[in-house]
Amino acid sequence: MKVKLASNYGFCFGVKRAIKIAESYENASTMGPLIHNQDEINRLKNDYNVGLYKELKDVKDNDTIIIRTHGIPKDDLKNLKAQNAKVINATCPFVTTPQQIVKKMSKEDYSILIFGDADHPEVKGVQSYGQDQEDVHIVLEPSDLEALNFKHNKIATIAQTTKKKEKYLEIVNSLILKNKEVRVFNTICDATFENQDAARELSSEVDVMVVIGGKNSSNTKQLHSICKENCIDSYLIENESELDSKWFENKTLCGITAGASTPDWIIQQVVNSVESYN
Amino acid sequence: MKVKLASNYGFCFGVKRAIKIAESYENASTMGPLIHNQDEINRLKNDYNVGLYKELKDVKDNDTIIIRTHGIPKDDLKNLKAQNAKVINATCPFVTTPQQIVKKMSKEDYSILIFGDADHPEVKGVQSYGQDQEDVHIVLEPSDLEALNFKHNKIATIAQTTKKKEKYLEIVNSLILKNKEVRVFNTICDATFENQDAARELSSEVDVMVVIGGKNSSNTKQLHSICKENCIDSYLIENESELDSKWFENKTLCGITAGASTPDWIIQQVVNSVESYN
Repeated sequence: MKVKLASNYGFCFGVKRAIKIAESYENASTMGPLIHNQDEINRLKNDYNVGLYKELKDVKDNDTIIIRTHGIPKDDLKNLKAQNAKVINATCPFVTTPQQIVKKMSKEDYSILIFGDADHPEVKGVQSYGQDQEDVHIVLEPSDLEALNFKHNKIATIAQTTKKKEKYLEIVNSLILKNKEVRVFNTICDATFENQDAARELSSEVDVMVVIGGKNSSNTKQLHSICKENCIDSYLIENESELDSKWFENKTLCGITAGASTPDWIIQQVVNSVESYN
Repeated sequence: MKVKLASNYGFCFGVKRAIKIAESYENASTMGPLIHNQDEINRLKNDYNVGLYKELKDVKDNDTIIIRTHGIPKDDLKNLKAQNAKVINATCPFVTTPQQIVKKMSKEDYSILIFGDADHPEVKGVQSYGQDQEDVHIVLEPSDLEALNFKHNKIATIAQTTKKKEKYLEIVNSLILKNKEVRVFNTICDATFENQDAARELSSEVDVMVVIGGKNSSNTKQLHSICKENCIDSYLIENESELDSKWFENKTLCGITAGASTPDWIIQQVVNSVESYN
């Protein structure tokens, strides 16, 4: 079976970087799971003895702690350092940027608006860099703006890296109409959307499509749904053990893509298996 | 005939202010016509001996020169001062603001984008405050952006005060998608749109409507067209001499509004005449 990979798939730049960092610090521990993929976490544990802490209070003196791509709140970082932990910061540079923007704009007396999910670790981290926490506001929808009271008529806005640009613009437009100055930082990362665009393109040129990723992962499910629109024979699997040779009968070209938490070695195993079918 | 005035009509804040300034400087001259209304210019000449220069080079030593609401380019102001003219600045504060924004943002290494008409005196004045003239760009349409090369990936935007917000947002949205930071200053003045909204409201509750203003004035024609949508008997006149008593036969309520260059005394004459009809 001939296989074609999507032009973009799997890990984004920030996750690849974080895993390389983890591989270069044997015996370190991550604060929270590094990615949403248990196989990859097991591999890091087995090959590099990378451990996992769920709570700050569990950290022991002189531990080496890897901060994951989402980043962590400013005070958590301070507490880690106070515990004499050696801190290795694998925060994605695309997340460090909004953290620094919030810090700087807040100092310059801008009210801060974050477009994102208040419960997401990335947003919690970014939010924590505001000097005046009462004037750091988080919204998910343009309609959420109505309830807000900004302290200044100068607003600085940033967005969670994985959010949709269209909705960010809606929110920004509403702010522009009501405020003298809106300083708009485009902090949205294209990685998620590049994987989606590539899946859309590939699925319309193959006759069978395999999507690899967690069955509970929202970005993987999204990829699967996009592929099904163009290619009715699109299958979602977590790894090569779930492949079924019947899917490839009378097919000539199989497209493969993977969710943002799927490591390359799992993808490679799937590619090898699919290629072995007649 | 009963008369009802629109809740907003005629001169905006900036023009009213400029005329008051002109009235308080007898024997001064304006650089260019203060407003697009010859009757008002004649009145200022007759009552306060306010003259009119068309060209900078005509200014004589020790003249008192009134800068009109649009403002003038920075170098023209410098030249006037070099000629020992006494300069009275009647630039509308809503125009001084974008001038100062362009000056400051340009110094802070932002590329400048102006949404407006490159030939309009206001825009020429605002543009002149950019430090690097090659990096001050003027667009009228979102599609104009394609041809531009910004020197920085930080853009500061301002709009000509009389432009439409909807189109400004379109332009700003396009910039946000392509640049890391867009600093959006909402410099649009509501006066024109407040007159239009008030005309829309009033024309739908009266049975005859009179719009006063220059027959070549685009904002007056716009008011007339809005009124006609709601009230078929809407008439455009330049002053009370053009009123026709037939218009008011069998009518009970006459609405009156006026373009942005129509002085109150002309409006009052029309109101008096219409009220005198049975």
